[in-house]
Amino acid sequence: MKLLEEKIRQDGNAVNEHILKVDSFINHQVDPALMQEMGKEIAEHFRGRGITKVATIESSGISPALMTALALEVPMVILKKQPSKILNQDLYQTVVTSFTKETNYELTLSKKFMTAEDHVLLVDDFLANGEAATAAIRLIRMSHATIAGLGVLIEKSFQPGREKLKSQGIEVYALARIGKMEENYIEFID
Amino acid sequence: MKLLEEKIRQDGNAVNEHILKVDSFINHQVDPALMQEMGKEIAEHFRGRGITKVATIESSGISPALMTALALEVPMVILKKQPSKILNQDLYQTVVTSFTKETNYELTLSKKFMTAEDHVLLVDDFLANGEAATAAIRLIRMSHATIAGLGVLIEKSFQPGREKLKSQGIEVYALARIGKMEENYIEFID
Repeated sequence: MKLLEEKIRQDGNAVNEHILKVDSFINHQVDPALMQEMGKEIAEHFRGRGITKVATIESSGISPALMTALALEVPMVILKKQPSKILNQDLYQTVVTSFTKETNYELTLSKKFMTAEDHVLLVDDFLANGEAATAAIRLIRMSHATIAGLGVLIEKSFQPGREKLKSQGIEVYALARIGKMEENYIEFID
Repeated sequence: MKLLEEKIRQDGNAVNEHILKVDSFINHQVDPALMQEMGKEIAEHFRGRGITKVATIESSGISPALMTALALEVPMVILKKQPSKILNQDLYQTVVTSFTKETNYELTLSKKFMTAEDHVLLVDDFLANGEAATAAIRLIRMSHATIAGLGVLIEKSFQPGREKLKSQGIEVYALARIGKMEENYIEFID
């Protein structure tokens, strides 16, 4: 998506070869009109595949997922993070180990909001190592729902997320794919 | 807002005199079309007052705030929760004590995204005791920005949030005001 690539070039900040800051329009401050365009673009890619719900991970996936769900006219379900394990039989639960942030958290989903009848599009802001997405898919599959794919705004293609998801049979659609980064330098993959 | 009151009557769950569950359309599963209508309604109420930014508190305020910001054509800024205090001179920071959840957390705002030139509309899903909103206002005022008001989806009018904010000079606009609750019973205030 050219619009997003241009925005990243203009307002993104490649801190080093791993860290891209997009906190002026995606993460901390959010550009709602751009977010709506991005949601529409993800929705268009997956339209006509019988998607019944859009799911995302709390909390930076909420904005793109809400706009995608709006365009697809389906509900959005937020997979909730909890700091510690509380046993609850009304929830699906899975532990996520974040190597990036060196923390553990519990990802939860109320059993009410996902069933075997659902065909779920997962949406998030970033795909890097695929840790969060893998956990989200594991959680969604506990409900026996099927996964339509993963839509993300920005993919760090030099990290193994896409390969990891592909090996689980998940199609990944990214609006901007970054092939390489250095301080103040970003290379996109077409 | 009649649409929201009807939705609360239909799909909300008054657990007892204090707890209202709206997790099927606001908190956990989100109805994007309803959220857009609610965002437009809040935007209409505050339109023409020179609002430059919509701010909200991570994470259940993100959906209504994004839709309000979209309608007002201004950026949304997410006040971020952090579990512990990390000193950072690029951030405004304030500690929030949640009596409801019996936890402490740090609310943070990057100095880049709010200045004395900003006139900020705060948006959240619920107003009850006003703890989170009070902390958000304290944080926003550190930047010397001015506050246009607080827009919320649901106000528990039997709790002191509105009075607390009024005493700080903050106008509160709520789409649905609940005067009284009991198990399976909800009374709205017009």
